[in-house]
Amino acid sequence: MPSISRKGTKMPESPIRKLVPYAEEANKKGRTVYYLNIGQPDIKTPSIALDAVKIHSLDVLAYSRSEGAEEYRKKIAKYYYNNSIEVDYSDIIVTTGGSEALLFAFGSIMDEDDEIIIPEPFYANYNGFSIASSIKVVPVISNIDDNFALPPIEEFEKLITPKTKAILICNPGNPTGYLYSREEIKKLAEIVKKHDLFLIADEVYREFVYDGVSHYSILQESGLEDYAIVIDSVSKRYSMCGARIGYLVSKNKAVIQTALKFAQARLSPPTLAQIAAEAALETPQSYFDEVKEEYVKRRDVLIEELQKIPGVKVAKPNGAFYCIAELPVKSAENFARWLLESFEYNNNTVMVAPATGFYSTPGVGLNQIRIAYVLNENSLKIAVEVIAEALKVYKD
Amino acid sequence: MPSISRKGTKMPESPIRKLVPYAEEANKKGRTVYYLNIGQPDIKTPSIALDAVKIHSLDVLAYSRSEGAEEYRKKIAKYYYNNSIEVDYSDIIVTTGGSEALLFAFGSIMDEDDEIIIPEPFYANYNGFSIASSIKVVPVISNIDDNFALPPIEEFEKLITPKTKAILICNPGNPTGYLYSREEIKKLAEIVKKHDLFLIADEVYREFVYDGVSHYSILQESGLEDYAIVIDSVSKRYSMCGARIGYLVSKNKAVIQTALKFAQARLSPPTLAQIAAEAALETPQSYFDEVKEEYVKRRDVLIEELQKIPGVKVAKPNGAFYCIAELPVKSAENFARWLLESFEYNNNTVMVAPATGFYSTPGVGLNQIRIAYVLNENSLKIAVEVIAEALKVYKD
Ligand SMILES: Cc1ncc(COP(=O)(O)O)c(C=O)c1O
Ligand SMILES: Cc1ncc(COP(=O)(O)O)c(C=O)c1O
Repeated sequence: MPSISRKGTKMPESPIRKLVPYAEEANKKGRTVYYLNIGQPDIKTPSIALDAVKIHSLDVLAYSRSEGAEEYRKKIAKYYYNNSIEVDYSDIIVTTGGSEALLFAFGSIMDEDDEIIIPEPFYANYNGFSIASSIKVVPVISNIDDNFALPPIEEFEKLITPKTKAILICNPGNPTGYLYSREEIKKLAEIVKKHDLFLIADEVYREFVYDGVSHYSILQESGLEDYAIVIDSVSKRYSMCGARIGYLVSKNKAVIQTALKFAQARLSPPTLAQIAAEAALETPQSYFDEVKEEYVKRRDVLIEELQKIPGVKVAKPNGAFYCIAELPVKSAENFARWLLESFEYNNNTVMVAPATGFYSTPGVGLNQIRIAYVLNENSLKIAVEVIAEALKVYKD
Repeated sequence: MPSISRKGTKMPESPIRKLVPYAEEANKKGRTVYYLNIGQPDIKTPSIALDAVKIHSLDVLAYSRSEGAEEYRKKIAKYYYNNSIEVDYSDIIVTTGGSEALLFAFGSIMDEDDEIIIPEPFYANYNGFSIASSIKVVPVISNIDDNFALPPIEEFEKLITPKTKAILICNPGNPTGYLYSREEIKKLAEIVKKHDLFLIADEVYREFVYDGVSHYSILQESGLEDYAIVIDSVSKRYSMCGARIGYLVSKNKAVIQTALKFAQARLSPPTLAQIAAEAALETPQSYFDEVKEEYVKRRDVLIEELQKIPGVKVAKPNGAFYCIAELPVKSAENFARWLLESFEYNNNTVMVAPATGFYSTPGVGLNQIRIAYVLNENSLKIAVEVIAEALKVYKD
């Protein structure tokens, strides 16, 4: 029998899905499982987007242009303009989710064995995309004690080799919830210019910033035009993860021309989803205000309740809808499995994501979990109560 | 300024799109351009598919499972069963077009510098996916004089090295229109078993077979369970290219488990498109009968008219909706450009795809073009007349 690739063997299993069979078992036992592990928000998709596909008048569901429909890209440029980011529509390639934008970016700027520096903990699928692209992730550790702020720039400098091609940040961060400051972005700008590296910023959570702080995009930093590549997505912004629409944005023409060749090979992003996503651009501001208010409430409840639990440390997130919590356990993975297998409180249990999947350095973050606050306030309260009760009796 | 990757430099531009600016110029001059260059059929999408998204009742456009919705996969298994192919739904991963299925297949079974043997001329994007995956295409030349039948198996054998991991065929073929016989499939089965290689068959044109001959899938060949990987797509079958739904199908569990990890990294295939594609499975047989009849008419007209032109050689296709024609010119690429730039007949001109983009051996197929018969009979007649008139006056 022919064998699969080394690459395929190395591809990580989704850290979030590993526990699914245990959750199914818990369900079978009649327990209610509170899912704090997934990035699929419960927030409604704007009706303007959902309705747009209901009134389509297509006879032939044809390929769109590989770079996305021109009219849609022009509207996206306007969206950026309204968000204080000046880009031309020709700087934008519409992709099949931010996921594909990441793949195109990696392929366009890196070859086999090239290195990309990423502050960890980071979005777990960066690992998968790196392995798929035969490149190497070089992690730089950020710390729960300062809310996972940007590590000192010297730490990046130490890791740069002739193989280093890029630094990747997620802003605001999944799984950290950390929002980088303008000063931090400026520091990154300096180092990439000094060493001739690309700076990739995954800004799919751009809108989800709280406490009156505003998001500073790498596309706003002047002098960074040739270095900056932004990964974007409609998935979280309009709670339309299933559409599969994202963007790769760069003012570096060579990057766009190269990414376009990858885009042409796969022909076209999804056409129906582009109809929905184009309509979503007309979502009224009130939608976002409500969503933001909802997330702030959830975050506040979550952090407050977690902080009450003895031995639990939690980084207060300023953005996105995740947080990392450190638990008084040796192995958060064992704890998470045990929660589903053996624990219930009022017949409820909880599924969390062990944080190790978000680290690439072995042995780091073993006692941390990621919580996605994609459930309503009341459910979050119940879920944290389950964790608190569980920690009272858990022995590892 | 940081530079793009070697891989990115090597990525081919779409051979079909190279001539687009010339076609745009011709349009500006007021000429009617007949597009014989694209694989986007003009056939209507079944209304059952288009209507399904109009009546959706989604509140949240959520991610689907990475491998595709279970119910949809069960129906796909039934579709295969009705086409004399026995697979379980767990053998199927729903992908974002056949394009993504190709990428997953390549990534799951090949590492950097591994080799894949492909009869040429072949679907041009196999080149792009190979470069993106850092693997090497090893072409084996098939010949217009025998309609691009399978090259002698010794020719394959000569090319096998320790780096060879797979043979890839397209059946029926784009751009050749050739339909492999059962005997040819059996020969391929033998050689892959002998050398422990995977056999990938791109069967996206399965339904488009003419003259009463039936399609023999590699999944029908017993003993090939561990070797066979099928690439499939709804794009052409239901003329819904813009949906972006395809499948990777294999009974080799290791392949499916590995491809699933690639699928998980990119989260989910498009959800709206799955709704449309699931509904498309209910398309009545009469739709396919009509479509087939239409393509046969077109093919017959096209071949008949082409054969009338002095010096033109054409391979009669048994499947898909493409054919390769050899022209009495030195460079079909120059001729194709000249058609758009400098020629008109009754104010009409034609855009064809030079065949070199479908070959990987340099210098082969220079005088060939690919014609897609995606226009109606009458337009095809006009288009071939333009080519005939052009050849009377063209000097290269
Ligand atoms: C940080 C980050 N980047 C990218 C993605 C990819 O999302 P999508 O492909 O749905 O746009 C996600 C999804 O969870 C994410 O959290
Ligand atoms: C032979 C072949 N394979 C695969 C594809 C990819 O199609 P899709 O990604 O739309 O399924 C095409 C499209 O033209 C094709 O001709």
